[in-house]
Amino acid sequence: MSTSGPSPDRLGARSLDPHLGRYAARAEGMTASEVRALFAVASRPEVVSLAGGMPNLAALPLDFLADQISSIVAEDGLVALQYGSAHGVPVLREQICEVMALEGVTGHPDDLVVTVGSQMALDLVTRIFIDPGDVVLAEGPSYVGALGTFASYQADVRHVVMDEHGLVPEALRAALAAAAQANRRVKFLYTIPNFNNPAGVTLAVSRRAEVLDICARHDVLVIEDNPYGLLGFDGQVYPALRSMDSDNVIYLGSFSKTFASGLRVGWALAPHAVREKLVLAAESAALCAPTLNQLVVSRYLATHDWKGQIKSFQTMYRDRRDALLAGLEQHMPAGCTWTRPDGGFFVWLTVPEGVDTKAMQPRAVTARVAYVPGTGFYADGFGSRQMRLSFCYPPPERITEGVRRLAGVLADELDLLHTFGPTASRSLSGPQTPAPDTA
Amino acid sequence: MSTSGPSPDRLGARSLDPHLGRYAARAEGMTASEVRALFAVASRPEVVSLAGGMPNLAALPLDFLADQISSIVAEDGLVALQYGSAHGVPVLREQICEVMALEGVTGHPDDLVVTVGSQMALDLVTRIFIDPGDVVLAEGPSYVGALGTFASYQADVRHVVMDEHGLVPEALRAALAAAAQANRRVKFLYTIPNFNNPAGVTLAVSRRAEVLDICARHDVLVIEDNPYGLLGFDGQVYPALRSMDSDNVIYLGSFSKTFASGLRVGWALAPHAVREKLVLAAESAALCAPTLNQLVVSRYLATHDWKGQIKSFQTMYRDRRDALLAGLEQHMPAGCTWTRPDGGFFVWLTVPEGVDTKAMQPRAVTARVAYVPGTGFYADGFGSRQMRLSFCYPPPERITEGVRRLAGVLADELDLLHTFGPTASRSLSGPQTPAPDTA
Repeated sequence: MSTSGPSPDRLGARSLDPHLGRYAARAEGMTASEVRALFAVASRPEVVSLAGGMPNLAALPLDFLADQISSIVAEDGLVALQYGSAHGVPVLREQICEVMALEGVTGHPDDLVVTVGSQMALDLVTRIFIDPGDVVLAEGPSYVGALGTFASYQADVRHVVMDEHGLVPEALRAALAAAAQANRRVKFLYTIPNFNNPAGVTLAVSRRAEVLDICARHDVLVIEDNPYGLLGFDGQVYPALRSMDSDNVIYLGSFSKTFASGLRVGWALAPHAVREKLVLAAESAALCAPTLNQLVVSRYLATHDWKGQIKSFQTMYRDRRDALLAGLEQHMPAGCTWTRPDGGFFVWLTVPEGVDTKAMQPRAVTARVAYVPGTGFYADGFGSRQMRLSFCYPPPERITEGVRRLAGVLADELDLLHTFGPTASRSLSGPQTPAPDTA
Repeated sequence: MSTSGPSPDRLGARSLDPHLGRYAARAEGMTASEVRALFAVASRPEVVSLAGGMPNLAALPLDFLADQISSIVAEDGLVALQYGSAHGVPVLREQICEVMALEGVTGHPDDLVVTVGSQMALDLVTRIFIDPGDVVLAEGPSYVGALGTFASYQADVRHVVMDEHGLVPEALRAALAAAAQANRRVKFLYTIPNFNNPAGVTLAVSRRAEVLDICARHDVLVIEDNPYGLLGFDGQVYPALRSMDSDNVIYLGSFSKTFASGLRVGWALAPHAVREKLVLAAESAALCAPTLNQLVVSRYLATHDWKGQIKSFQTMYRDRRDALLAGLEQHMPAGCTWTRPDGGFFVWLTVPEGVDTKAMQPRAVTARVAYVPGTGFYADGFGSRQMRLSFCYPPPERITEGVRRLAGVLADELDLLHTFGPTASRSLSGPQTPAPDTA
């Protein structure tokens, strides 16, 4: 497994790092992206950012939260400021089970591990299951932060196509058959069934049992990542995959989108034997999730109308989704297509052939609108005609203005395309890894 | 690298886990320890626990902290409760540099990454440097949480002996020579130079340059883990290894022992090129450390007499150290030896030949005193005649009583030993992994 260091040409290319020969093989892919520089520019106030995935916290009752947190520290500070167990605060684990019950999940608090956001849950799951070269199946496109984690454990990610009803079961069967034929071990399917990031589509309820059945038959675990499940715009809540199969699904949840991302409280609900390994892995990764933050979430769930709060988030995000879809309808040039999410944060836009969304991005930022190019959401280079548009953060009128600007850039791009040929030939070189949704 | 599953006999032994054949090779060593059950018993109020490593927070100004946290949430909640960057909050990074300046470190805030406790920093450093089979050198004994992390990345840990002046340079040279002769790659030396956990000894200042020089000559990175550095009982502050070598040392720090462990705020200061990889690894592991917690630490450093607070911690822990040493002096049977720490949390006790501290542990808990057996602090099975005694948590009079009980158990054990032979033959079987210091 150990490598004998980089080849001479790579050394030459990156010789500014004197530690280059020392890194683990898994660190090979950890290179900073040029796109990050654009993200810094995109965060300027004059730019309408349809790029980030930050939740909008303006509706939170800050004074109420300030009082609650203050009383936790004053009355229970010796617990709140002390180490806890890697398993998580018991009362919070019970409350989380009540939250998941809204999606039909009947889980036991013992089988739940509290993590530093669901990103850490994803990291731990990957850590305990993935050997270098193991195959992970993921929707195409998929969450960029998951792809980063899979890459850091040297997984071989294969995408499974989606249509407007989510993951296509026939494509899942084909991907499993292809892996079997190539004698490759598929460890798990990673899926975001509800209001997919970045695609904005939802796995049809009629497909859920089928997807689970296919995976169970092929001895493939299902990792269900569900940060947006309670953010359906018509109040609809889809049954979690975990509600239909408790033996073969690991459910990842988060308070980042329904309460406060900056607290970094997420969780994994896993089959009992797996949960034991997750706790040991969590201990090794960070000892425990911050006790204070767990108590804050617990207090919030106990004392605040958190379901009402989620309803107000739904309304806010629905208005923004409406603004984005109306703007696309009104301004986008012919040949563009996009998804129509009924929840979550994202719309997935496909532009006409010949346009390269990554090559176009600097021009978009110059025109004061930002998005995330599609290739970052694929492990295999696909996505050059796609982009993710977020409607979670800017207010509706800014979203409308952003879409207007984006349509202008795209129209110019299509003009150029007719005159000079495909943008791909004018593309920037180098890897493309957008920052995750913290940007 | 991928394994073909466990051998049949192992499968038979652990067939309760239906996911057994799915785990990554690195998860192989993640098995729950029987010692954990004892820890649960040891946490009963009638037991004097000299086992845990929890800091004593009783001296913290909880009402003041409650007010400060409240005002952060009320006035700056949209930042505090929102995602931040994986790099960490800029103002906190500047303040941490001021903290490290107390130990002679001149670091740039850009080269510092804020992590979820220094445990996460350790995890990230191991992640980017260690391929399976790479050699890590560590003091013997060493921090159990570090050994767990190294094991989870399949490192080959080799111990380097310490004496009362810490790591022995000659032994370090010998370990490096042995690895070279066996054609094994040594990636780094992991060291806790100040008030070592669990040994309680400090690396003599006169040895520090020599240790650094040896590592630099052998192209071996130094990971300096320094959670206790400011907890010297005579107010002494030793110069950090990082203060003497900025190119070859990664410094890990933490607010867990000098402020509040439950906030989980630690950091790594690394050479610039390494820092970039650490940020990318941190993003993949947890997106970012909790923003609220970073702002709380920042506010605390800005508004509280934190140096005075640390002085009061020093006094409190010194009184407890004194109680433990006096108790040992008074009660321990002949043939016992122990270290005399001038800071930190721990004393390392060696018992007479023939006594097995792990086998004795259940009898100690029955006698209402708990400690951590020594073998958990070694990756190679050494330590059966050793134990770690913590003086950080119980008040002095409880410590005195705990030592009296422990001495009684030990005296009985020595009686048994004379009658029936070594305890090792009566030992419990199975792996021994104490819980880390959160227990």
